Amino acid sequence: MEKKKLRIGVIGCGTVGGSVIRSLKLNRQALKKKTGIDISVVKAFDKDKNRQKEFPSIFTSSAEDIVNAPEIDIVVELIGGVDYAHGIVTRALKNGKSVVTANKALIAEKVKEIFGLAEEKNLYMGFEASVAGAIPAIKTIRESFIGNNISRILAILNGTTNYILTRMSLDRLDFSEALSTAQEMGYAEANSTLDIKGIDTAHKLSILSGLAFNKFVHWKQIPVEGIEKVEPIDIGFTAEFGYRVKLLAVAQKKDNTLDLRVHPALLPMKHLLSMVEGVYNAVYIEGDMAGKSLFYGEGAGGGAAASAVVADIVDICKEIAQKNLPCSTLLYEDEKLTTVSMEDIYTRYYLRFTALDKPGVLAGISGILGKNGISIASVIQKEESPEKAVPVLILTHRAKEKSMRDAISEIDKLAFIKKPTVLLRVEE
Amino acid sequence: MEKKKLRIGVIGCGTVGGSVIRSLKLNRQALKKKTGIDISVVKAFDKDKNRQKEFPSIFTSSAEDIVNAPEIDIVVELIGGVDYAHGIVTRALKNGKSVVTANKALIAEKVKEIFGLAEEKNLYMGFEASVAGAIPAIKTIRESFIGNNISRILAILNGTTNYILTRMSLDRLDFSEALSTAQEMGYAEANSTLDIKGIDTAHKLSILSGLAFNKFVHWKQIPVEGIEKVEPIDIGFTAEFGYRVKLLAVAQKKDNTLDLRVHPALLPMKHLLSMVEGVYNAVYIEGDMAGKSLFYGEGAGGGAAASAVVADIVDICKEIAQKNLPCSTLLYEDEKLTTVSMEDIYTRYYLRFTALDKPGVLAGISGILGKNGISIASVIQKEESPEKAVPVLILTHRAKEKSMRDAISEIDKLAFIKKPTVLLRVEE
Repeated sequence: MEKKKLRIGVIGCGTVGGSVIRSLKLNRQALKKKTGIDISVVKAFDKDKNRQKEFPSIFTSSAEDIVNAPEIDIVVELIGGVDYAHGIVTRALKNGKSVVTANKALIAEKVKEIFGLAEEKNLYMGFEASVAGAIPAIKTIRESFIGNNISRILAILNGTTNYILTRMSLDRLDFSEALSTAQEMGYAEANSTLDIKGIDTAHKLSILSGLAFNKFVHWKQIPVEGIEKVEPIDIGFTAEFGYRVKLLAVAQKKDNTLDLRVHPALLPMKHLLSMVEGVYNAVYIEGDMAGKSLFYGEGAGGGAAASAVVADIVDICKEIAQKNLPCSTLLYEDEKLTTVSMEDIYTRYYLRFTALDKPGVLAGISGILGKNGISIASVIQKEESPEKAVPVLILTHRAKEKSMRDAISEIDKLAFIKKPTVLLRVEE
Repeated sequence: MEKKKLRIGVIGCGTVGGSVIRSLKLNRQALKKKTGIDISVVKAFDKDKNRQKEFPSIFTSSAEDIVNAPEIDIVVELIGGVDYAHGIVTRALKNGKSVVTANKALIAEKVKEIFGLAEEKNLYMGFEASVAGAIPAIKTIRESFIGNNISRILAILNGTTNYILTRMSLDRLDFSEALSTAQEMGYAEANSTLDIKGIDTAHKLSILSGLAFNKFVHWKQIPVEGIEKVEPIDIGFTAEFGYRVKLLAVAQKKDNTLDLRVHPALLPMKHLLSMVEGVYNAVYIEGDMAGKSLFYGEGAGGGAAASAVVADIVDICKEIAQKNLPCSTLLYEDEKLTTVSMEDIYTRYYLRFTALDKPGVLAGISGILGKNGISIASVIQKEESPEKAVPVLILTHRAKEKSMRDAISEIDKLAFIKKPTVLLRVEE
């Protein structure tokens, strides 16, 4: 069945759903060039009528209208919660539609039933957005690491709790102050019990470990402790011991046993996971071939989840249309793009001059820099030595490469400059 | 064409090729259960006769024997270099075989010709291993971030130079000392000009930016500076300014211009890329939906590259066999695995006791810990106050959760303990 025009229905048009619809519209031509498939959202529904305004032409009166529409190939479920969403997904699959969802609670609760039905119906289930937002944790484990025997996963999978722990650590807030701040910033819901008690993390760990170890353990069977009991004093003292506190999902396989748990944990400050701050998520994986890997990104927010939803939609479209030729996306060229020549780049610069230690040296250098429109951010000149040349270090503000080269060329001709100047660029 | 038994030929049996052959053999049954496809290596060749010993039954007398074998579906090219490898890949494609390669120089040099031929022949080219070893940088950009407009990539793509810069930074070695150490450790080849001058990084940047921006810029058109000119003094002074020096691949799109370059760059110490040490690689990507992401892992070594090669082989097998049903891999269960109960885990513990500040407190606590087989790594008891309870902090060595719970339960009954003890676990 080759099908080059595929139609999507979106149920739930909040921040994620809205972002998915806008992205597919904005990128429709680019996706068509890259995949050979014309992907369009033809129906959308949300029970909040205010959300209809942005998409009046595709808005429909009920979720059932999308689930039952004969022309729809893929139903995107973005309403959350278990029972109602389960009904939607089940009816969509029974009606012959593949499904994409961001619903970790649903997948964690009904994984075998849903995947069994999809397999029976020869349909696709996309659920990348259910774990770790934009980070392709599911695809990486299922596809990129398929040759690996994975022995360990450590992951920060909940942005709300990571934000709270970060604020407690950096600003010495106590738990309830940090929670209020998270709520004010929109990083925590009014009722964030599932986040704080670690249950949201357990849902996600159930999914990730099911994929990594081919054993789905129901989240209720995973030992879980939340972050409520972590006090500022513990964050302070663990820092003195050289650790940071994170709400961690742990999955470790040894021989034929699987150790799964969710709890606040001390991580050594040099561990990459301990650097993950604020609402970011990260998944650390150890495999027998890949070694140690870390995948870091935005774990929540409309755009991040939508990025994963769109990827699932496109993957499933390529399967349905049998259009997954690896080279077609490679041969599409963006004709409009031109490259920037090195002389035209703008960046900050580190400069090391080797100059005689005489009065007027800094004036001479900074005069030429200034004449070329380059302004100085910091200067270090440590050593003093009237006889021999000493290093003079300058960090500049942003400048054009061409101006910088002109300036250096002029400076290197000065009598008190004893060696060619070393230039390094700064990226931030 | 449904084909459930697929045959692989491997040309080049060094560390990567050997690891690929061993992995496919070891995981053959697991891969069959996960994908429904029986994947086997049926022929292998290496010009070094010593490498035949490990795989005598599949060893063949020439690369041409693999390229021409009618039964082979996928040719894996792991010999490196451009011209000879180009001939192999071209003849394989012309003979109707899909190709998997780790050869960045070949892809960077001949990208359009090779992909064009594959497209014309309706075949697959897998090249994940050509950039950043085990990190799925190519799949992430092509598939997971397909809905994103990528604006920026910063990447550390060469393990040799990152190792040298790390040793220069941590151990104050100069460039030539660090290079010798890298060579002794096997992290740098005798002739590592391509690495040190940044050309290897430029090859990889040409591939990544081609995929991210749909514009393949030949690596010779990318401005490149190597790390030879970086001196210990610069690493020292940039650290004082708050930066680390890395050999960076930069790709930035703004409007319709593309800024590509490779050079040593200063990165703020808080940037995740500046934490990437030794032979590790990392790719940092900014996209309009996904936001900021970082992918970190082993950039070199037989296992890491083989992990990516095996992933490409399995992906292509699923395409050839039309067996990419997302759910089949999900329903396979490892029956042998059992979960570990929380009481049976072993970890290190942070304990915060709240105790009256009296003689004998530490003896009482440590006595009960000792009786339960728990040994102490460090103790902090800062405050002194004869009247009120003060915190006593203990970090233990590894212990069993059950023993720890028994000990805490006993300790919390002591008269001088004034609050339930706080327990946090350590992961490393």
